[in-house]
Amino acid sequence: MKDFTYRLPTRFVFGHGAENQAGAELEKLGAKKVLIHYGGGSAVRSGLIGRIEADLKAHGMEVVTLGGAQPNPIDEKVYEGIELVHRENIDFLLAVGGGSAIDSTKAIAHGSCYDGDFWDFFCGKAKPERTMPFGVVLTMSAAGSESSNSCVIMQNRTKIKRGLSTELNRPVISFMDPELAMTVPVYQIASGATDILAHVMERYFTCETEVDLTDRLCEAVMQAVIRAARIAVRDPKNYEAQAQLMWGSTIAHNETVGVGRQGDFGSHQLEHELSALYGVAHGAGLAVVFPAWLRFQMKKPEHVARIAQFANRVYGVPVNFENPAETALRGIEAHESFLREIGMPVTFAELGARGEDIPALAAKCKRNPQGTIGNAWPITVAEAEEIYRIADR
Amino acid sequence: MKDFTYRLPTRFVFGHGAENQAGAELEKLGAKKVLIHYGGGSAVRSGLIGRIEADLKAHGMEVVTLGGAQPNPIDEKVYEGIELVHRENIDFLLAVGGGSAIDSTKAIAHGSCYDGDFWDFFCGKAKPERTMPFGVVLTMSAAGSESSNSCVIMQNRTKIKRGLSTELNRPVISFMDPELAMTVPVYQIASGATDILAHVMERYFTCETEVDLTDRLCEAVMQAVIRAARIAVRDPKNYEAQAQLMWGSTIAHNETVGVGRQGDFGSHQLEHELSALYGVAHGAGLAVVFPAWLRFQMKKPEHVARIAQFANRVYGVPVNFENPAETALRGIEAHESFLREIGMPVTFAELGARGEDIPALAAKCKRNPQGTIGNAWPITVAEAEEIYRIADR
Repeated sequence: MKDFTYRLPTRFVFGHGAENQAGAELEKLGAKKVLIHYGGGSAVRSGLIGRIEADLKAHGMEVVTLGGAQPNPIDEKVYEGIELVHRENIDFLLAVGGGSAIDSTKAIAHGSCYDGDFWDFFCGKAKPERTMPFGVVLTMSAAGSESSNSCVIMQNRTKIKRGLSTELNRPVISFMDPELAMTVPVYQIASGATDILAHVMERYFTCETEVDLTDRLCEAVMQAVIRAARIAVRDPKNYEAQAQLMWGSTIAHNETVGVGRQGDFGSHQLEHELSALYGVAHGAGLAVVFPAWLRFQMKKPEHVARIAQFANRVYGVPVNFENPAETALRGIEAHESFLREIGMPVTFAELGARGEDIPALAAKCKRNPQGTIGNAWPITVAEAEEIYRIADR
Repeated sequence: MKDFTYRLPTRFVFGHGAENQAGAELEKLGAKKVLIHYGGGSAVRSGLIGRIEADLKAHGMEVVTLGGAQPNPIDEKVYEGIELVHRENIDFLLAVGGGSAIDSTKAIAHGSCYDGDFWDFFCGKAKPERTMPFGVVLTMSAAGSESSNSCVIMQNRTKIKRGLSTELNRPVISFMDPELAMTVPVYQIASGATDILAHVMERYFTCETEVDLTDRLCEAVMQAVIRAARIAVRDPKNYEAQAQLMWGSTIAHNETVGVGRQGDFGSHQLEHELSALYGVAHGAGLAVVFPAWLRFQMKKPEHVARIAQFANRVYGVPVNFENPAETALRGIEAHESFLREIGMPVTFAELGARGEDIPALAAKCKRNPQGTIGNAWPITVAEAEEIYRIADR
């Protein structure tokens, strides 16, 4: 196990009608003028934004709203938000939505406290040193951005999508009502579940040894999320399944299951290029990339044991002790079957991606200083091409 | 799943030499005059206290020390600490040790901010409203007090042992170096592992349905702790096993695996009377109480399924679908075998408890307002007697 420092300052208000506590809680936090940032019109049409706005006002706050946070949130909306914060003297940001609204809000919060261009933080030119207080009303179980240290923004002009990891990315408070996730389209529920699983898998596939406790925590989350996703795509009104998915999304990506181990996140880099180029849902892109990445990685003998462990412990694949690679492969197949079952694409064609774009996709992937992609099980650009080709079958 | 609010503000510094960061971190937290509170002389003899004291002084802090925190920490030491805090104008408390030093420190911290008798908090007369900042250098994996909302103190005159649950019980920072646990006597390592398991089991045995995710998280911790305990009692210098136990102790009792479900904690009440009367290690008392509690609870048909699930998922007992009670019983037996294997007592005689004390023990157990003991699976005083008698075989 690696040494680590860990702190998770976010307060979670979880359960039925959690969002109705926003006014009281933000008042306690001293918010005076709140910018509510959300995505599409459905949050307005459902009455959610109006309800939260009225609640904040009833608790003495002024409210400004900013809609239009996009899936794969873009820099232009962030600039708009920063300008609004300064013009309106906003002192608290409240994201209402899923990962897009939250990540856009995080970038607005950091950018509002910085004299330069906020994109500096994402292209590595600068590190954010402070931020504004911000909270979340979560409406979708997926990105885990409601307490993660992550934020992903796309520069719209270049279609470059980049992540920023910083402790400043953790919200002050997150209101999590699984009922709000019930109206999410089934494809998005499935895509969200795939994202949750990918966050765990990015941590699970590691070189670190002696991580039995976090291995088992990872397996616990994967098993529960797989079970709940199967229920939720058939019966989105099932509160209990939505609740498992929602809390699962949170602990999958806030280091509850990741402390003391180095994850990989190469699959995320491979996916970012897909969603940047084709505008596909992040989770759907991961459904295509991750099995291909596993098929590639299992060719390296040192990775077989861990993929076989995944197969056995998560999908119940019987162990073939004489041929662990066969166990590993059955696990990857079981994962693909699950993804298909919940309606996810698992090939380039099913996603709407094109084989001829592969060299450009691989070339664009964010590389480490060593020129490789990913961390625990790093790959070269040529290997990234190979992985995309495995997915293009 | 139940609705919940959850926040864990503690910063964890985990790994090799974590305690050497105490000076730098406490300086960042603004500490000026620190009271180091510890237990026995071993922390002094090993040089640990001296090392920490020198480090704090090197970072500009004044230091006062208070030793003598007892296993089953007593009120008299708390009064002494409160007096010292006031006399010396202490502004930060640092517990160095296991659950005893930490709980004693928590009570000193709360009591120092209260005009009345700190025992008011433990006998239910008053609720603490504020506390002093306090941190932990953990030397033993057991109580989980390094981030839990729990604190247990014994009134020495009456031998009444009472717990206090409050968010104020969570330390500001916890330094966790598994190397420090290597010199703990093997019996105490085993006792600590038993306590960790009991903290998970208290949460696992619940009436709450649809808690698949936290069920599996509980099972993950139990499996990893059982494995690591087996290694650590044979090879206490095994860093990796000690690391699993240490982080396991933390997440077993800080609600990482307990959110959204009601636990029981009746076994803890039954045990508190044993350690109060006989001065036995808390974990050893739990090793005697918990299997007996399970043997009693499995007579209630509504509890069989959950105990059978524990048997199958934690101890790998094959499921007897026609007779789940047999599966449940095999699980309890497997748990007892494990406890014996790591050197724990599992009967009254092995613990040094006496059958003739049973009526008095049962009568003294802390009861809920309804007159029962425990929460999810509550028992009467007569049933508490029955459980003690099961253990007295």
